[in-house]
Amino acid sequence: MKISLLGGTGDIGEGLALRWAQKGHEIIIGSRKEEKARNSAEDYMERLKKLGCEVEIKGYDNAKAALEGDVVVLSIPYEYAASTLEAIKDSFTNQIVISPLVPMKKIGKSFCYSVPSKGSAAIEVRDLLPETVSVVSAYQNIAAAKLSNLSLELDYDVVVCGDDEKSKKIVMELTSEIPNLRALDGGPLENSMMVEAVTPLVISVAILNGMKNLSIKFTQ
Amino acid sequence: MKISLLGGTGDIGEGLALRWAQKGHEIIIGSRKEEKARNSAEDYMERLKKLGCEVEIKGYDNAKAALEGDVVVLSIPYEYAASTLEAIKDSFTNQIVISPLVPMKKIGKSFCYSVPSKGSAAIEVRDLLPETVSVVSAYQNIAAAKLSNLSLELDYDVVVCGDDEKSKKIVMELTSEIPNLRALDGGPLENSMMVEAVTPLVISVAILNGMKNLSIKFTQ
Repeated sequence: MKISLLGGTGDIGEGLALRWAQKGHEIIIGSRKEEKARNSAEDYMERLKKLGCEVEIKGYDNAKAALEGDVVVLSIPYEYAASTLEAIKDSFTNQIVISPLVPMKKIGKSFCYSVPSKGSAAIEVRDLLPETVSVVSAYQNIAAAKLSNLSLELDYDVVVCGDDEKSKKIVMELTSEIPNLRALDGGPLENSMMVEAVTPLVISVAILNGMKNLSIKFTQ
Repeated sequence: MKISLLGGTGDIGEGLALRWAQKGHEIIIGSRKEEKARNSAEDYMERLKKLGCEVEIKGYDNAKAALEGDVVVLSIPYEYAASTLEAIKDSFTNQIVISPLVPMKKIGKSFCYSVPSKGSAAIEVRDLLPETVSVVSAYQNIAAAKLSNLSLELDYDVVVCGDDEKSKKIVMELTSEIPNLRALDGGPLENSMMVEAVTPLVISVAILNGMKNLSIKFTQ
């Protein structure tokens, strides 16, 4: 599958690019500057080569990267998401767009979820893009540093929300391809606000209780 | 410590009453009708007696129960919380009031957090009560059925939020007295909305993925 990672030069874009490339997907890194994207793509190819995995990863500016992908991950800070999507709107036709976006604000030493007027970042993304695009939310709660360290074993639950069942299933399958990520159906896109809220909760609990690289697991 | 459980005849009130009574706390069950509270109190005493634990548990109407407690747990459905608190406002002076309240709405097969205009149920409770009362939020995410089954071993994380550090510490200590409940500092009361949102998320994930009695654990 052709997967574009806007802002794929860092954060969870890096880890997803590396781990999906290992699984044989065609990876495209997007960045505001094409050169930066190409540099990251080369760096990722080299790191994978050292692990015995020779693949081609492309680097484009965000507009071209979005245009080329079947699946487009918005691995950009929430603060820049709306302006980025506005600027490259014409690149979107019928892709699956994955929102890992989380709006949050600092309160004292900790962070709190900052509820957007539309209810969630995922709904904001949906309303910014053409109706033919299918927006799915996922990967909000993953520690980027762990995801991009290929020698680390992951142990995360990924809750996937979306209104189109077929798109949601594709994202859940892509998730399950990464070892020890468990994909869980989170229901409609509107439910995304709860998953988004978990990120500042996890960060706050980590800060306030002296824990590191926290995530949550659903346990029975 | 004198702990009153308003709505202590069911839901998490039952489990907290039983488990704290086992630890030697003075338990008061509150209900809209004193008779119902007394019946539950007697039932709890009998169940504990069978386990070799002879204690006295009192049953009062909610107003008297609230008045008598050092700590008051609002184990009532969110829908009735505001009217209940309005009706018994005069009972509150300087207690620690614990809000496990969660506002949620059904969307299709699943549930979504319903953000109150004040941001969270805990903040609503704070604004309904005198300023001398210290509101702490906790226990939103605990499966009531497991809590009240004393033969079950628990394995839950309880995130505690509150603006008064001393009150928060007391609630965290009360939490830690129950075996296998881990108390985590969740920061100020405003952060409670994130913990409240976890409840409908957990319920939705359980419904949509065929799981039961789910909870979340913070893992490193």
